[in-house]
Amino acid sequence: MAPKSRSYQLSATPFVIFAQLLAIAVTTLVFVLYLHFEGGFAFESEDKTKIFNVHPFLMVLGLIIIGGEAIMAYKIVPGDRRTQKGVHLILHLLALTAGILGIVFIFRFHNEIGAKDMQTLHSWLGIITISLYGLQWVLAFFAYCFPGGEMSRRGTLLPWHIFVGMVIFLLAVATALTGLSGFSNLLLSTKGYILNFTGLLILLFAITVTLTVILPRGY
Amino acid sequence: MAPKSRSYQLSATPFVIFAQLLAIAVTTLVFVLYLHFEGGFAFESEDKTKIFNVHPFLMVLGLIIIGGEAIMAYKIVPGDRRTQKGVHLILHLLALTAGILGIVFIFRFHNEIGAKDMQTLHSWLGIITISLYGLQWVLAFFAYCFPGGEMSRRGTLLPWHIFVGMVIFLLAVATALTGLSGFSNLLLSTKGYILNFTGLLILLFAITVTLTVILPRGY
Repeated sequence: MAPKSRSYQLSATPFVIFAQLLAIAVTTLVFVLYLHFEGGFAFESEDKTKIFNVHPFLMVLGLIIIGGEAIMAYKIVPGDRRTQKGVHLILHLLALTAGILGIVFIFRFHNEIGAKDMQTLHSWLGIITISLYGLQWVLAFFAYCFPGGEMSRRGTLLPWHIFVGMVIFLLAVATALTGLSGFSNLLLSTKGYILNFTGLLILLFAITVTLTVILPRGY
Repeated sequence: MAPKSRSYQLSATPFVIFAQLLAIAVTTLVFVLYLHFEGGFAFESEDKTKIFNVHPFLMVLGLIIIGGEAIMAYKIVPGDRRTQKGVHLILHLLALTAGILGIVFIFRFHNEIGAKDMQTLHSWLGIITISLYGLQWVLAFFAYCFPGGEMSRRGTLLPWHIFVGMVIFLLAVATALTGLSGFSNLLLSTKGYILNFTGLLILLFAITVTLTVILPRGY
């Protein structure tokens, strides 16, 4: 990743398009999994699974898919940098909100079934991810929006903003994989395959988003 | 990651040193976990856990730690590029061998306890990782060692070699996290904490190795 982006001799455009196809595929699988196989969603229900289901739904489609689109905003959105920045900022706020809600629902689920919180590596990774996500959003808002730092400072900060942002995004993906893998077993037949393929497609989405960050804009 | 490495205004050296401390910490935790808590290692034993233990041991210390050192060779090894390349190539071969052996041991363990293979997301991610690792090693050997491509071709290929290499390394890390998280639960008290902290330290090692790739050599 060290060499200049030009040296890849490709533009981000084909990967931006591929990422949209992957986003559609992941969204479809998540809906099939949690609506068809797992009985849907609920805030209150006798069937506690419905409360649990909100957690992976918000995490995958909110934090990861919308978060990924936010990252790609600079390569997708036509027009000036101001518009791109606005889309980047708002999509990340949406993703962060979905992530926080998703965590609220898993605590709620644990509370309903009387399970202890924060026991697993998945939960530790998740709390670290959401904390860094929030921190990164707030710091970047101060530095790049309001009140906004000096231009030279912004420039110095930018590579670190991008690096830390990518670390947080890939951390979210790794956390999702640990979460999905806790339930994945082909002994569950169709459901197991859907879980495994959801994991693989999320991974492919993450790789594609990373490529669009490295490669130059195509138009 | 798109901007030039100079713009980070830091050299890789402090991160190379930090990575060594993390490598020592992970190695210590893995030894404590599998020797003290899990009863050690065996190729044949009535205690099947001892056969299983070889798998995470080889994967974490072989594929991830030695693999990470191989990646950092260009920032660690003093002397000319030829020496660095030799160290990079040999350490990756060691890591790959450890990875293949680690997979042999998990198939052996499944066979001994009569479990089905390749059921989980962890196993799918693992097989993909080791296949890509082997492919990347062989292709890079042909391109950069023997017979070796034209100089201009090597240059064109290099950013992709680095990008694909980092994808494989981070894939190995994500796979390890899904593996560890399958056993992590603080209800296991001390052992649970060791598992979770091993996961976090592996993650920190991965981030640090990635930084050393992006940042320029310090001396």
